[in-house]
Amino acid sequence: MNYYVGMDLGGTNTKIGLVDEGGNIIFTTIVKTESMEGFEKTIERLSKILIEQVKGSNINYDDVKGVGLGVPGPVVNERVVKLWANFPWPKEVDLAGEFEKHLNRKVKVDNDVNVITLGEMWKGAAQGYKHVLGLAIGTGIGGGIIVDTKLVSGKNGGGGEVGHTKVEKEGKLCGCGQNGCWEAYASATGLIREAKSRLTVHKNNKLYEKITSMGRELEAKDIFDAAKEGDEFSLNLVDYEAEYIALGLGNLLNTLDPEIIVIGGGVALAGDILFNRINEKLHKYALSSTLEGLKILPAQLGNDAGIIGAAYLGMN
Amino acid sequence: MNYYVGMDLGGTNTKIGLVDEGGNIIFTTIVKTESMEGFEKTIERLSKILIEQVKGSNINYDDVKGVGLGVPGPVVNERVVKLWANFPWPKEVDLAGEFEKHLNRKVKVDNDVNVITLGEMWKGAAQGYKHVLGLAIGTGIGGGIIVDTKLVSGKNGGGGEVGHTKVEKEGKLCGCGQNGCWEAYASATGLIREAKSRLTVHKNNKLYEKITSMGRELEAKDIFDAAKEGDEFSLNLVDYEAEYIALGLGNLLNTLDPEIIVIGGGVALAGDILFNRINEKLHKYALSSTLEGLKILPAQLGNDAGIIGAAYLGMN
Repeated sequence: MNYYVGMDLGGTNTKIGLVDEGGNIIFTTIVKTESMEGFEKTIERLSKILIEQVKGSNINYDDVKGVGLGVPGPVVNERVVKLWANFPWPKEVDLAGEFEKHLNRKVKVDNDVNVITLGEMWKGAAQGYKHVLGLAIGTGIGGGIIVDTKLVSGKNGGGGEVGHTKVEKEGKLCGCGQNGCWEAYASATGLIREAKSRLTVHKNNKLYEKITSMGRELEAKDIFDAAKEGDEFSLNLVDYEAEYIALGLGNLLNTLDPEIIVIGGGVALAGDILFNRINEKLHKYALSSTLEGLKILPAQLGNDAGIIGAAYLGMN
Repeated sequence: MNYYVGMDLGGTNTKIGLVDEGGNIIFTTIVKTESMEGFEKTIERLSKILIEQVKGSNINYDDVKGVGLGVPGPVVNERVVKLWANFPWPKEVDLAGEFEKHLNRKVKVDNDVNVITLGEMWKGAAQGYKHVLGLAIGTGIGGGIIVDTKLVSGKNGGGGEVGHTKVEKEGKLCGCGQNGCWEAYASATGLIREAKSRLTVHKNNKLYEKITSMGRELEAKDIFDAAKEGDEFSLNLVDYEAEYIALGLGNLLNTLDPEIIVIGGGVALAGDILFNRINEKLHKYALSSTLEGLKILPAQLGNDAGIIGAAYLGMN
């Protein structure tokens, strides 16, 4: 049996996993990334932990045939990280090469949402499909585009940066500095922003009651929960969310015409109350031929998607 | 030497060409499509003409190794035309199979703008590139997306239907029945529509003088010509056109991050006055990493792109 390492390199934690060629997870472990100690030192330490963990798992390191990594940033040629979000590491660095020095294995790297989408195609909601659009809708909106089982990463790793497609010309300011980005509207952050804006003038609703009694910041889940309890104010916010998700999805459907869209991230946990509305609204934005036979499903693998997808990347 | 037939099946005329394996055109000929005589009869007649033309050109038909076709409609699996614009022919028809009956060669079919984009990659402006976005901006806006030298046609042939991505939520009505489509703003039709709307209230400009003296309908070229002569009113219209092209392009860059964008169709003939403005405005809409090293060029092959691209399709 051959084995593949999958890693999910995050700003705070890094997840390391070993996956067999059938996509079964042998183990996963979480370690602090501690990127402050510097690029080379961190990679060396993570490599040592990886090798030790494999040895401790009764798997012969010789049977580990490849290593894949997901990282929070754009990646060029499955090797070079163009720039780091939240890491004090140099730009344009050959991350694959640095790991290869220590691991003595071929290493492949791609953007984390791209890698998650590979995972969902291999063992999750998109199993058996070749043309897949993966979306992670949480703090921002990230996308992974798979055409004929291959990731579309683009010349500079910008493939799938769909959170920054524009849904309103000269619209709301986005964290990227541009205006009208999809994620400024339809991410969890965008939904909360809209909710807070409306709550400053509408206080006669269940959501307002909830958050004033909670003593913590509003979360997207609070809005979906209040909507499920029938709060009209919150239902209107769910409608807002579904409208902008449908608008952005419509543009991607008219561009890529995928077989299946897999939606993960916090917002996807809202379930039918959101997905049903998205499906109703898509007809306004997507060409009807792109909706014929289209599947839109929540992600299945949850936190394991990054490990399984990275292992798949390392395998192929 | 091997040869390939390229055909461009149009509502009025069909162009048939023979191309050698180096991409050189041996001959092209134009015949009336006459789709009214029915699907099977038309294909039979076009096939006979094709074989006769090859025989008349001193090329042995045995040396013709494949046939490619571009058609005005979405195509599934390089064979089946999902629906016909302007043809009284059945939906979901196996066009490749029908030609194969008569030609005794493998036949491949794809959407006409997809095929043009293949042509520009093989022998035109995008030669040597693997990740190409082709756009035809004329009556409408069509797109061809090439990732790693392969067309993205989508599950139902909707890949590249970028003219119907939305640039204004609940915007202008489009011919497709939806609102806010890119082509309702930035196609030649969209530009003329905007110009006519402005001309109803602004008459003190060169463009108004021109068209009242011309005695024919306004064309996009008139606007670009007047702008080049310094007409402020027309320059504002060029600015409008560039703004919306940049907005739509930005969304595609943030989705696909191609190496090169090739723009054809009537609007592309405007030249620098338009392309310079598009380049200036793109920074508002596209992530900066997608603009690094990006080339945006006018199409080079003109009317031959369809034949050369179709031959390339038939070859690969």
